[in-house]
Amino acid sequence: MKQIACLVAVMMAVAGVIIIATSASGEADEGAAPNFGIATMPAGYRDWRVISVAHEAGSLNDLRAVLGNDIAFAAARDGKLPYPDGAIIARLAYSYVPSAENNKAFGREQSFVAGAPTNVQFMVKDSKKYAATGGWGFAQFNDGKAVDDALLKPCFGCHVPVKARDFVFTKYAP
Amino acid sequence: MKQIACLVAVMMAVAGVIIIATSASGEADEGAAPNFGIATMPAGYRDWRVISVAHEAGSLNDLRAVLGNDIAFAAARDGKLPYPDGAIIARLAYSYVPSAENNKAFGREQSFVAGAPTNVQFMVKDSKKYAATGGWGFAQFNDGKAVDDALLKPCFGCHVPVKARDFVFTKYAP
Repeated sequence: MKQIACLVAVMMAVAGVIIIATSASGEADEGAAPNFGIATMPAGYRDWRVISVAHEAGSLNDLRAVLGNDIAFAAARDGKLPYPDGAIIARLAYSYVPSAENNKAFGREQSFVAGAPTNVQFMVKDSKKYAATGGWGFAQFNDGKAVDDALLKPCFGCHVPVKARDFVFTKYAP
Repeated sequence: MKQIACLVAVMMAVAGVIIIATSASGEADEGAAPNFGIATMPAGYRDWRVISVAHEAGSLNDLRAVLGNDIAFAAARDGKLPYPDGAIIARLAYSYVPSAENNKAFGREQSFVAGAPTNVQFMVKDSKKYAATGGWGFAQFNDGKAVDDALLKPCFGCHVPVKARDFVFTKYAP
């Protein structure tokens, strides 16, 4: 019994060392971490308020809702730019699906609704941490999993044309 | 000075009578009141959480966000139907506008965003008050003003095909 207790203690100690090592590593090279160091989706993002909605046709072919946490939503709504540190914008995209049910009610083919989710993107404002990319960190999650960092490399470059709006394309819909 | 004070008092009294009369009338024939008795837009609806998004093409040609107050949002998200009394669903519609700015960033013509608001519709659940229309009251506001009651007459009939989902077309987008 004592041996088992000792073994458990050793295992816990080793696990502790691994956790500490991982944490230290994470802190050491945060800037180079995948998804700008945004390893998981911000908690509760699905409950955030909506800044606007959009449709991307072409190969993306999605319907999207752009949500903001309280800091981002207030800044977008009030037009108070730049977005303060702590602001997070979430872009939820869904496949663009014709609705036979709605079309029947309308009596014509015109209705498109949100189908299965495709991916979720985030812009996280931290003017110091992300100084090299306009103060924004960029992240994308497919099925809840962070995408390969290479996919996020072009993000900031694309957002530069809207520098005057603090690099955010979406405008608040009243 | 006394005369002015008296005149003001009389004016206030008359105004009071009018207000009381209006209120009494409103209570007396609530079922026949315009917009199902929903005279003003529910407070704070723009801050409600998003149930889903959609696009209506054709003559409507809009992008829409379907929001729910806390009761409606929880019922939609959890699939707990029928919607409880107190549930309110808001459908915000915006003109469907191509975005030259976004298209330039994407390098192709594919991007449509929310333009000017067109109108806001509400479904208000009160199983007793609106028993004749599946427990739902229907309202529409153009520029914040309630539309003519005749426009709302067809609402319920159109929603009957989705009786199994408590007369609500929109499904929750996760």
